[in-house]
Amino acid sequence: MDIKKEWIHFIENSTEQEQEALQVFLNSLKMKRERKSLTHIASLLQLKTNLVEDKMLEMEMPNSPLLDNSIGIVHGGLTATLLDTAMGTMASLVPGNKRGAVTVELKVDFLTPGTGEKFICRAEVVHNGRQLVRMEGKVRNEKGVLIASATGTFFKLAD
Amino acid sequence: MDIKKEWIHFIENSTEQEQEALQVFLNSLKMKRERKSLTHIASLLQLKTNLVEDKMLEMEMPNSPLLDNSIGIVHGGLTATLLDTAMGTMASLVPGNKRGAVTVELKVDFLTPGTGEKFICRAEVVHNGRQLVRMEGKVRNEKGVLIASATGTFFKLAD
Amino acid sequence: MDIKKEWIHFIENSTEQEQEALQVFLNSLKMKRERKSLTHIASLLQLKTNLVEDKMLEMEMPNSPLLDNSIGIVHGGLTATLLDTAMGTMASLVPGNKRGAVTVELKVDFLTPGTGEKFICRAEVVHNGRQLVRMEGKVRNEKGVLIASATGTFFKLAD
Amino acid sequence: MDIKKEWIHFIENSTEQEQEALQVFLNSLKMKRERKSLTHIASLLQLKTNLVEDKMLEMEMPNSPLLDNSIGIVHGGLTATLLDTAMGTMASLVPGNKRGAVTVELKVDFLTPGTGEKFICRAEVVHNGRQLVRMEGKVRNEKGVLIASATGTFFKLAD
Repeated sequence: MDIKKEWIHFIENSTEQEQEALQVFLNSLKMKRERKSLTHIASLLQLKTNLVEDKMLEMEMPNSPLLDNSIGIVHGGLTATLLDTAMGTMASLVPGNKRGAVTVELKVDFLTPGTGEKFICRAEVVHNGRQLVRMEGKVRNEKGVLIASATGTFFKLAD
Repeated sequence: MDIKKEWIHFIENSTEQEQEALQVFLNSLKMKRERKSLTHIASLLQLKTNLVEDKMLEMEMPNSPLLDNSIGIVHGGLTATLLDTAMGTMASLVPGNKRGAVTVELKVDFLTPGTGEKFICRAEVVHNGRQLVRMEGKVRNEKGVLIASATGTFFKLAD
Repeated sequence: MDIKKEWIHFIENSTEQEQEALQVFLNSLKMKRERKSLTHIASLLQLKTNLVEDKMLEMEMPNSPLLDNSIGIVHGGLTATLLDTAMGTMASLVPGNKRGAVTVELKVDFLTPGTGEKFICRAEVVHNGRQLVRMEGKVRNEKGVLIASATGTFFKLAD
Repeated sequence: MDIKKEWIHFIENSTEQEQEALQVFLNSLKMKRERKSLTHIASLLQLKTNLVEDKMLEMEMPNSPLLDNSIGIVHGGLTATLLDTAMGTMASLVPGNKRGAVTVELKVDFLTPGTGEKFICRAEVVHNGRQLVRMEGKVRNEKGVLIASATGTFFKLAD
């Protein structure tokens, strides 16, 4: 198995920073092994749903070296991924939505640099229409600093 | 070095699907080792700039098991990451923009399911203002199918 | 004065529906005569600020024949005008913003048909940055039905 | 007929600026009298479709005192109205769309101050889906200066 040799070689020569990334990758692979339905990106970002209410859910993404953009703050695309996942999950849970929902469009406002230990996204249903679910999302860090605000439109898949 | 043992144990027990993911992770780690300035997410997504013109650039993201969402198409958050990275890179290259640009807001329209071998994002400058750069982006697969369309506003960092 | 003759001729031949429109136009002209600083569109739409708080204001637009689109509900462009005006007015009132603010971008989600006697827009500051003010707005009718939801980015004019 | 007396009184005491507005209102009333299907706002803004092609149309809005905001440029809400009307009209003309289309969401980027003699909006179909039509629009003045750029999502009404 060549891949094993390659990995051993890489690990033996790894720097401290690379070992941090290796740890994130291993955690991600293990998390996905346990919960096969999970997507790779959700396990890489260690996304975790904390709370589900009637029209609202809360999803968390811990900070990690994987999230950084080139200027040391969380990459906007990953903030968008957290928002899309949280809003889409909530949109799939509205009454009468048996087969889930797909994202029609997503608008993210980046308000302050994404720093902190973890990022908590609160996703709320604004309007549950016949075909479309309209969502709002806010991302804050563990100190409550508002990092990003978003809206999304989701299309309900037919039965 | 415990991480080494853990990895060997994981690799020895890995399924074929996990080996695909392992390959992606290893490629990503090697890509980042060679080009330290790269972000983890850019190397994970194997983002590659193909072409840079006066007001336009083209960036490519190969499909991989890492990109899939739960229904077998590329995760919208990663399409958004490709768009944000391509538009932000181009916004940083406009004349008189010495320190780069940060994303103010990003709007992505998801048009068709993201399937294919690779995703090619074309990012164009719509307007280069004094402080703000307005961008447009389109993502197509290798067959030219339009998958997503986006606009973004970027703020020029001062000198 | 030819315009006078033309008007008299038009008025003498006007239908009941046209007389409704004539009344709206006359009210608008009188409103602007009294408050010269008002824009024509604000007086035509009879926009009225009801309430101003620290980070929120409420602006009202009465329904009228002028507002209807071709299918009997308020024209989306006029809902957008109410939202832009209310959010822009509030953005101009944030501390340290001496010369007002201009709209960078406006995103409106149309949720339910705009019917009712009047439309009440609540505009709130989401984030007051160094150069940009990020706003949210919601339009409801007099019964509290949510008609539209919006976000807007405004640029502070320098002193 | 009291409204007639009120109008005569207003007209006899009108300033030059008010007479300009009176002219716009009269033109608007006449335009609507001729084409009853027109909305008041479309006749007030003197919206005119210039060109219709397969996936594109061009609509024009002449500048007038009615369009100005408080700082002498066209009010953003009216630019949005032009964009919404042009994109919505085009979205209603796509094949298989028998009963028209309603706006789901509208995103307008304001790029440069809206000055000039007239504003020309080009609206193009980006994607014609089963239920949703995705549109793009650009507003330029008669000199070709790009004033605003927009995207819109429209929902096809069922037969």
